[in-house]
Amino acid sequence: MLFRSALTQLQRRLYSQHASKLTNVTNNEGVKTITMCNPKTGNCLSIPMMQELISNISAEWECKDLRVIVLAAEGKIFSSGHDLKELSEEAGRESQEKVFSVASSLMRSIIECPVPIIAAVNGYAVASGCQLVAQCDLAVCTDISKFSTPGVNVGIFCSTPGVALARSVPKATTLKMLFTGKPIGAEEAVQTGLVSHCCSKEDFDKVLDELCADIVRKSRAVVEMGKRFYYKQIDQDIMTAYKNGGRVMVENLNLADGIEGVNSFVDKRKPKWTHS
Amino acid sequence: MLFRSALTQLQRRLYSQHASKLTNVTNNEGVKTITMCNPKTGNCLSIPMMQELISNISAEWECKDLRVIVLAAEGKIFSSGHDLKELSEEAGRESQEKVFSVASSLMRSIIECPVPIIAAVNGYAVASGCQLVAQCDLAVCTDISKFSTPGVNVGIFCSTPGVALARSVPKATTLKMLFTGKPIGAEEAVQTGLVSHCCSKEDFDKVLDELCADIVRKSRAVVEMGKRFYYKQIDQDIMTAYKNGGRVMVENLNLADGIEGVNSFVDKRKPKWTHS
Amino acid sequence: MLFRSALTQLQRRLYSQHASKLTNVTNNEGVKTITMCNPKTGNCLSIPMMQELISNISAEWECKDLRVIVLAAEGKIFSSGHDLKELSEEAGRESQEKVFSVASSLMRSIIECPVPIIAAVNGYAVASGCQLVAQCDLAVCTDISKFSTPGVNVGIFCSTPGVALARSVPKATTLKMLFTGKPIGAEEAVQTGLVSHCCSKEDFDKVLDELCADIVRKSRAVVEMGKRFYYKQIDQDIMTAYKNGGRVMVENLNLADGIEGVNSFVDKRKPKWTHS
Repeated sequence: MLFRSALTQLQRRLYSQHASKLTNVTNNEGVKTITMCNPKTGNCLSIPMMQELISNISAEWECKDLRVIVLAAEGKIFSSGHDLKELSEEAGRESQEKVFSVASSLMRSIIECPVPIIAAVNGYAVASGCQLVAQCDLAVCTDISKFSTPGVNVGIFCSTPGVALARSVPKATTLKMLFTGKPIGAEEAVQTGLVSHCCSKEDFDKVLDELCADIVRKSRAVVEMGKRFYYKQIDQDIMTAYKNGGRVMVENLNLADGIEGVNSFVDKRKPKWTHS
Repeated sequence: MLFRSALTQLQRRLYSQHASKLTNVTNNEGVKTITMCNPKTGNCLSIPMMQELISNISAEWECKDLRVIVLAAEGKIFSSGHDLKELSEEAGRESQEKVFSVASSLMRSIIECPVPIIAAVNGYAVASGCQLVAQCDLAVCTDISKFSTPGVNVGIFCSTPGVALARSVPKATTLKMLFTGKPIGAEEAVQTGLVSHCCSKEDFDKVLDELCADIVRKSRAVVEMGKRFYYKQIDQDIMTAYKNGGRVMVENLNLADGIEGVNSFVDKRKPKWTHS
Repeated sequence: MLFRSALTQLQRRLYSQHASKLTNVTNNEGVKTITMCNPKTGNCLSIPMMQELISNISAEWECKDLRVIVLAAEGKIFSSGHDLKELSEEAGRESQEKVFSVASSLMRSIIECPVPIIAAVNGYAVASGCQLVAQCDLAVCTDISKFSTPGVNVGIFCSTPGVALARSVPKATTLKMLFTGKPIGAEEAVQTGLVSHCCSKEDFDKVLDELCADIVRKSRAVVEMGKRFYYKQIDQDIMTAYKNGGRVMVENLNLADGIEGVNSFVDKRKPKWTHS
């Protein structure tokens, strides 16, 4: 653990773990921040960008110091969605298929990642950029942010973004966005459940930091078990979900941190997590 | 296509395609408006009314000029729901079974219709009239509109309206409406996602026209593909939905309008749809 | 029926059917109120408390005088969730498994109960106490109420409460509550659909009484059939749900109260329910 903390401080000084041009990664007290830094393209989700995101999201899953991931972006566009050049006729069917196969892997990496992933949106989240937000576990946005699935305007219906939207917001919101291509604002995004937190630009860092600190304070092993079960049970009928949920709860109670947590509560003291 | 446009203008002059007493149908620049015009019965969804709606909704699916359908109503009652006479003891079990079989076909026709269907509600949508609104892809209502499932008051629980509601609004809203039979207002309807748009009576036509124009502007083939996939994926687990979604996206890209759309975007020009 | 009414009045005078220390039960004109009365423990859902709730919820299902159940609580804490002592290491795996097995039975009894169950929350609903609220058919809360799933703070992720939450509120709300452990207030609870009704403390009894009276006025047989179908259809694809819904509607129409209801409507008179 100390070794990891030292490394984290070193990384902080170096600012970025990666020399890549597409993303910057920082690690700070359990918070890994992955920043898309290709604002010229509106942080478009090109195949290389998605591969870097997958690689960054999927790294260090076994490392107990990783507690929460923030997915952020440089510039006024959180992400403009897939790279249309990779989807063009010239690019060919193989390139097109690869785009959606890699996008599926990116979505899967978010779902399977053992720690919560928070989208930090300050600006426009468009098409698969909007899908990315809807697929994250939590999302904080500033009040100037906008969310849209305008693919239909250029002849490419946002069918895959619709998969994430349909599981986050009401049908009326999903279909309004998909059929019209028009954006919704931050207020509607929070009211409909596309984002979990909304604040002014001034409060953005504070709200994000507090949310991350909230999660870092928990046992990583417990959070992981809870996240995994959440995504499993949503596709089950309710009584199956409760039955499996009971099993997961007992498993949780017999984790080192489950035992420690209950003991600390009974003893009226702060728990000491080993994150296992 | 020109032939179709000429026909559309002719129809506009004639106002109504159908001489029927139950519905009026107009076609105007891609917008087919089906107006229930039996206000004396509160536009009740009698078997003949539902059959006319199915017939009107299901007509001309292969016609590229059909881009969006508006489902409207004359009078203060959008629809009062099924015709209780057809459900009475005297009518008999065969009549009762036919009501729900035809209603199922009506719901299926809305889901399978290749273009979006917008409910245009200015008044009361009651029982299966409320189901109709919830089942449409989009719904615009005026701020005086009300929505209810009061069947329980006359001993007939709105079980089939509940199917549509449960897939549009939160459980709390659905069960409150079903168990109490009390209406919700327009504000609550928009907040909970029963309708996608709400406006004053003065703005009703403008909001509807803009929404329709928004959809007419898109490629009909692309909208159709997107709508079909949306209703397919909602009953799938998320990773299956993404996998199938990827396939649909590639299929979409290789539609004539998919290719044109991407090319037009890369060339920074307006796309010219062939709707195929 | 008269016999039942007399018994109900007797019960009212006696105030409580049960001499138990954990719950009080009253019956008043079709409304069975089950009050958790163990405020010292924050009405914790210990195994005995859950068993009493199941026993009270499951009693008299065949009695036509039972029309609606209110689940209430004494003190400022609606319920603090499971009894951590029963979940401790010392209690052992058998006790832990029993907690979740009994909790599953409690949730099942709420779903299968033939009459609507209303949570009446005036204060804190915590962990499985929050699950209880989310699982009830309807919930009324006062504006000072708070809802949380803070298990993660003591190393026990609220996985089973998440099952109920995920089926009541948007993903963003569920995951925010589960990962941070922080409460949401009454306003957010009503906006997101965790509760169906919210009011001031002054209006609490009036709102509850009106809601109960609303339900008591209906045919018990019709409400039962509707509730049973609602929970069946939510796990079905939409066209299967409509098909089954049609069958249930015809069955409903041929109930004595379905026939009476339609006849009374056609005759423009009040229906006389036999609740069969």
